[in-house]
Amino acid sequence: MAEKRPYSEYSDEELQSEIEKLRQEYKKYQGMGLSLNMARGKPCKEQLDLSMGMMDVLNSDTDLYCEDGTDCRNYGVLDGIREAKVLMGDMMENNPDDLIIYGNSSLNVMYDQVSRCMTHGVMGSTPWMKLPEVKFLCPVPGYDRHFGITEYFGIKMIPVPMSPEGPDMDMIENLVSSDDTIKGIWCVPKYSNPQGYSYSDETVRRFARLKPAAPDFRIFWDNAYCIHHLYDDKQDHLIEILAECKRAGNPDLVYKFASTSKITFPGSGISALASSPNNLAEIRAQLQHQTIGHDKVNQLRHVRFFKDIHGMTEHMRKHADILRPKFEAVEEIFEENLGGLEIGSWTKPHGGYFISFEGLGGTAKLIVDHAKKAGVTLTGAGATWPYHKDPHDSNIRIAPSFPPLDDLKQAAELFALCVKLVSAEKIYADRHV
Amino acid sequence: MAEKRPYSEYSDEELQSEIEKLRQEYKKYQGMGLSLNMARGKPCKEQLDLSMGMMDVLNSDTDLYCEDGTDCRNYGVLDGIREAKVLMGDMMENNPDDLIIYGNSSLNVMYDQVSRCMTHGVMGSTPWMKLPEVKFLCPVPGYDRHFGITEYFGIKMIPVPMSPEGPDMDMIENLVSSDDTIKGIWCVPKYSNPQGYSYSDETVRRFARLKPAAPDFRIFWDNAYCIHHLYDDKQDHLIEILAECKRAGNPDLVYKFASTSKITFPGSGISALASSPNNLAEIRAQLQHQTIGHDKVNQLRHVRFFKDIHGMTEHMRKHADILRPKFEAVEEIFEENLGGLEIGSWTKPHGGYFISFEGLGGTAKLIVDHAKKAGVTLTGAGATWPYHKDPHDSNIRIAPSFPPLDDLKQAAELFALCVKLVSAEKIYADRHV
Repeated sequence: MAEKRPYSEYSDEELQSEIEKLRQEYKKYQGMGLSLNMARGKPCKEQLDLSMGMMDVLNSDTDLYCEDGTDCRNYGVLDGIREAKVLMGDMMENNPDDLIIYGNSSLNVMYDQVSRCMTHGVMGSTPWMKLPEVKFLCPVPGYDRHFGITEYFGIKMIPVPMSPEGPDMDMIENLVSSDDTIKGIWCVPKYSNPQGYSYSDETVRRFARLKPAAPDFRIFWDNAYCIHHLYDDKQDHLIEILAECKRAGNPDLVYKFASTSKITFPGSGISALASSPNNLAEIRAQLQHQTIGHDKVNQLRHVRFFKDIHGMTEHMRKHADILRPKFEAVEEIFEENLGGLEIGSWTKPHGGYFISFEGLGGTAKLIVDHAKKAGVTLTGAGATWPYHKDPHDSNIRIAPSFPPLDDLKQAAELFALCVKLVSAEKIYADRHV
Repeated sequence: MAEKRPYSEYSDEELQSEIEKLRQEYKKYQGMGLSLNMARGKPCKEQLDLSMGMMDVLNSDTDLYCEDGTDCRNYGVLDGIREAKVLMGDMMENNPDDLIIYGNSSLNVMYDQVSRCMTHGVMGSTPWMKLPEVKFLCPVPGYDRHFGITEYFGIKMIPVPMSPEGPDMDMIENLVSSDDTIKGIWCVPKYSNPQGYSYSDETVRRFARLKPAAPDFRIFWDNAYCIHHLYDDKQDHLIEILAECKRAGNPDLVYKFASTSKITFPGSGISALASSPNNLAEIRAQLQHQTIGHDKVNQLRHVRFFKDIHGMTEHMRKHADILRPKFEAVEEIFEENLGGLEIGSWTKPHGGYFISFEGLGGTAKLIVDHAKKAGVTLTGAGATWPYHKDPHDSNIRIAPSFPPLDDLKQAAELFALCVKLVSAEKIYADRHV
């Protein structure tokens, strides 16, 4: 079967006829009036329906008091109610005392964290705004909204290549220990965005043992997908970073973030920051000027809904049952349509929200454009790199969660077609330059 | 009756015997084991109960879709759902298009606003962090949490005296037009914190016509108590500042804030910022880096609960019915116990959450200490001034909302006693220095 041979081995004639065939197919898709979206990691309707019970656990007959007697309806409790700290602590594998519960968005917590470092520094260091240059390391491909925060604050971003074990630790150790203008690194350590990679034990251990030249260097550890498994039997395990930092004698090195955004309702969940007592004391001292407290009623709602971490774990299995067929459908369609052609590779994650597609150099933008023109919106090419600049123009993030399964299959088939068409045209063109 | 004469006219002997009597009375209170709190503007339990219906309007049988079809459970809608903008716009007397809906705390919105000016300036101006000095004007007595934000950012605060008409506009006009390091002013224009004053028409008109030397000067207009009347028949009216600024050709001068914190549940409400299209465009450009959106489910909950501004207005009448007797009780007890003694004056607001007490110079700290030692916690003396420094040591903020009426009466009586004791002792001591 022709498809099983790499395109690069096709003769000119074979390639021309393949391109002709693909163009015809593409035209058919254009006539179908598709309007599908694989751009963002949004849960689908069925996933949201799983949490509708959230709307029933509090009503006018229930009390809205915490276990310690606090009336959750009133002002107060700067860093979160105790039972929410216990629940989120169990989810994040942290001591409840090492947590601050925030509002509906961990992105907001991360933004605020960077903002505070800009205006006030870290534990007495010079505010980053007062320094001539501040740099962050950015494992790539990575999460566009992380890069958006640092770009907004004028922080210079340095890409660090990712592997299935995590980011290049040799490079990170060298840079961090030699350059005191490097103040931070963005990490999605488990089921990474967009690859779905989880950092290896060695990677986490080396992170915990970094010897930064800058005393105000911090690791921004966004454990967004900590319990977001796709399989019961194939789960990635990540060494808990705060504990590892303590063991390594580096207790203050990390700000760790998580939220329930992809557990209950995105935008109406609760988020948390975990860190060392020193870091938390500094953050609370700032936080008291920013708010009287976050939404305790919503914290209580989450606790009453899940009861405990077991309830949350069972809830996540239901999410997995919805998401798993979607990931597997995309992987099957990619394998069926692209396997053997040597024009792209893709990750096969055990959790998280994304598949990372790596095409031939110089094809990503064209593939995304082609898909768009046939009615399928993808995350913009380049989005996974700082400044939206993918130097190879090869990476595309695939978000399979949102569309219904049948739509998703259609979108994945169109995507594969676009990859084939753009790649075949590129190979042909490269031969005839 | 002895109490009707000013203490200053008492002979030494009369004063000594009065002090002796007051000390005995104070001792009795100390033996009572009171534990009452008049420190913060917290709604009481009965007020919170008014909003319990909020917990019923959304349940697993209701849909969670906006009027425009948006699923409020999912990500998205950066600046708030349309119907929340309409409701908050009606409350704030602003066009829904001139609003951004935020999360649970307008304090947070104000903090973020100052923070953004620090790191990014205003409409292309130099970030305030990069300037050698930044100053804010602070009408005094004022709201401690406002002053806390500007102090945290190292902004120098200049007190401006308040009158029942609002802050001293001659002083403000002079300062703002001559000093381009003055970048802002904190205002609580209606039922001010702590006096309950509302700015006169002339004051608002002069605000709208300020000619700041600094193009990045902004008025921080915290309309926290816009619909928080105590009376149906005695309501203060405030000219809407954004409209007045437009009329004056100064459309970008104001950031205006409000929230439902003292309407529904403090800490679980929604907040909003209203401003000109230019200002809002700049804020949205920043906000997209900070969050994907605020809690839309809670926005929807508020809209479904109130339906419209009429529902909210009726709801506020129920709050007033609870609060009014408390304010009147305090005023009566003050009049009965302190009237004619010429050792203090207090405001009699038509709305808001506070009464401002002005004692003899050098007595406020002692009065608060005395009350504390007999079991009644008041807002710290000095809290109503920048840097907690009341130069006269005379102002105390009274917050009558939280304690049950009987407790409140006891607390007010003890407060009056402390005022008498401390003032009599001071007058006596001053005579014998």
